[in-house]
Amino acid sequence: MTARKTLTLEGQFVLHRGGRLHAPVIAYETWGRLDRRRDNAVLVFTGMSPSAHAASSPEDPAPGWWEEMIGPGKPIDTQRYFVICVNSLGSCFGSTGPASINPETGQPFRLDFPVLSLEDVAEAAWQVVRSLGVRRLHTVVGPSMGGMSALALLIRHPGCSRGLLSISSAARAEPFAIALRSLQREMVRQDPEWKGGSYAPGRGPLRGMRMARKLGMITYRSAEEWRQRFGRERIAAERVTGDAFDMDFEVESYLESHAVKFTGEFDANCYLYLSRAMDLFDVADHGGSVAAGLAGLQLERALVIGMDTDFLFPVHQQRELADALAAPERTVEFLALPSIQGHDAFLVDMDRLRPPVARFLQTERGG
Amino acid sequence: MTARKTLTLEGQFVLHRGGRLHAPVIAYETWGRLDRRRDNAVLVFTGMSPSAHAASSPEDPAPGWWEEMIGPGKPIDTQRYFVICVNSLGSCFGSTGPASINPETGQPFRLDFPVLSLEDVAEAAWQVVRSLGVRRLHTVVGPSMGGMSALALLIRHPGCSRGLLSISSAARAEPFAIALRSLQREMVRQDPEWKGGSYAPGRGPLRGMRMARKLGMITYRSAEEWRQRFGRERIAAERVTGDAFDMDFEVESYLESHAVKFTGEFDANCYLYLSRAMDLFDVADHGGSVAAGLAGLQLERALVIGMDTDFLFPVHQQRELADALAAPERTVEFLALPSIQGHDAFLVDMDRLRPPVARFLQTERGG
Repeated sequence: MTARKTLTLEGQFVLHRGGRLHAPVIAYETWGRLDRRRDNAVLVFTGMSPSAHAASSPEDPAPGWWEEMIGPGKPIDTQRYFVICVNSLGSCFGSTGPASINPETGQPFRLDFPVLSLEDVAEAAWQVVRSLGVRRLHTVVGPSMGGMSALALLIRHPGCSRGLLSISSAARAEPFAIALRSLQREMVRQDPEWKGGSYAPGRGPLRGMRMARKLGMITYRSAEEWRQRFGRERIAAERVTGDAFDMDFEVESYLESHAVKFTGEFDANCYLYLSRAMDLFDVADHGGSVAAGLAGLQLERALVIGMDTDFLFPVHQQRELADALAAPERTVEFLALPSIQGHDAFLVDMDRLRPPVARFLQTERGG
Repeated sequence: MTARKTLTLEGQFVLHRGGRLHAPVIAYETWGRLDRRRDNAVLVFTGMSPSAHAASSPEDPAPGWWEEMIGPGKPIDTQRYFVICVNSLGSCFGSTGPASINPETGQPFRLDFPVLSLEDVAEAAWQVVRSLGVRRLHTVVGPSMGGMSALALLIRHPGCSRGLLSISSAARAEPFAIALRSLQREMVRQDPEWKGGSYAPGRGPLRGMRMARKLGMITYRSAEEWRQRFGRERIAAERVTGDAFDMDFEVESYLESHAVKFTGEFDANCYLYLSRAMDLFDVADHGGSVAAGLAGLQLERALVIGMDTDFLFPVHQQRELADALAAPERTVEFLALPSIQGHDAFLVDMDRLRPPVARFLQTERGG
């Protein structure tokens, strides 16, 4: 069962950094109903890897990636809001991306896919929003990469949303995060099975992807959390293989099992494109500085949430984003939450995240 | 020109976790002179990758890896102290390690080398110290892995040193650091050129080593330093290759050039053995807890220095080490320095590190 819907963006879709796609498809899901005034729509952008299945629904009861956040009576309350979540352009869960068939060749795009920017992810999502009869969003919500996509949308379509909820995101990629993602991409590309991007569909650089995912998991969490969870616990004796330099510690086993699961689902070329899109993103590309880029958003209110232990999207970047968003007649709030779960807190530390999100969305419209 | 000396440890060297080596060789250098009372010797353990060439000398004027720290009139003053630095057992700069010829086979040991522990690194160094006529060290100095080796030495030979200077080190590896090093080892082992460890001497998994080194460099520095150094600077247009997913940013180019340099020098199997030795090290293996392990050191004074931005050997671990070293009649000082250069500060932020090291070593002997 799926609640996935798709929209074909008819004609030529011109990308931010050049190139075009013919009639790309965007997958999305919705929850709740658009009210008569059409002013209760909330758009949720995802982080790098999730699908549009952010929450369960009668059509698809499988739990979504933000199940505790979206639903009836939940912080993003689907009894009150019409919630839309899109699978990013360039991803591989129903939206057109490098793993999709290029209509010009009958083969997957692979590296013939144009350079992807988060401006393109934003633009494609906006076309979905417009197709649903929404002219102005109540709030655009973006965790992690999704917060960057939300900023790209606000910049390209000033006034498109009254509210912004940015969680564990940033106005631009900093060199530390760029270095980590660059190394992740190198792991994928150095795997001989990558084959310059031309692996067979459904196959590919599984080892490289597994290592890239492990580095991701290491950077998504915090040292403190792992200390509490794993300490120096050894793996059970019956699981020791005896291979030289195989796993000794429980933390290694944890990474391995989760990385194996991930790499079966996510296409390697899509990963490369989305990863680089994050590196390339910089609000300052729109006007010369972050402040100039954010000058014309026509936004009424914003809440910027960061996590103390996030070192991929560090809290100082989020304070900077909140400062740059400050404007007369606009309410901007910045919250640094003391989660020990690092960047992943937005997915797992829900007891901490739900209250401020609920409060932001329960405030009277226009309040 | 070389100032390198070697000592052959005659007979069978039995390793801490089992196995033995026949007459291994340890490379070392010395500076200054042992005085008549033989109480002015300082032993310097290295981090994971350096040679024994910690400083220049008339015999070898090439700058050493701690050139600003060791020499006449420098913080570790060779006019006052007889300074010894050893190349770790298991390394590849003159000491016996996996890249050395196994006398039983006439081939490199490779993965036939026994499991290496820092207790073995410590024991081999101690035999060098004893061969030089020293019965008790004035101070044992250890940055990074070297601090762990220093603790191992003090535990195995209580009373072997009056002083301990631990810099950016820890009493045990925590799961975050283990996860990073485990992933580095996986990068090396997944490189097809590793060949299960049996690559030809001087060749090997250069790509895997390069990636492992990049991850090392990322974890040795701090996000803040990189922000100041690189920002979002792009590489020069004439160096852009046009290859898909090749480097865009200056930080990527920096990592690449430094990683290439490193991988030409360091043997991959030695890297694997030393990396795992760090993961395996735990003072608590000696007595059941860190406190019990450190109970019988017969140490008079200790200085434990950490760096605020070090997330590989985080400052809380160094505070814990200092706390665990506290004992009646022992002077223990803990210093957290506000360097932005992370774990690598001990190699590069010398203006910050020299004064406390000089002060510790200028204190009257026995003071």
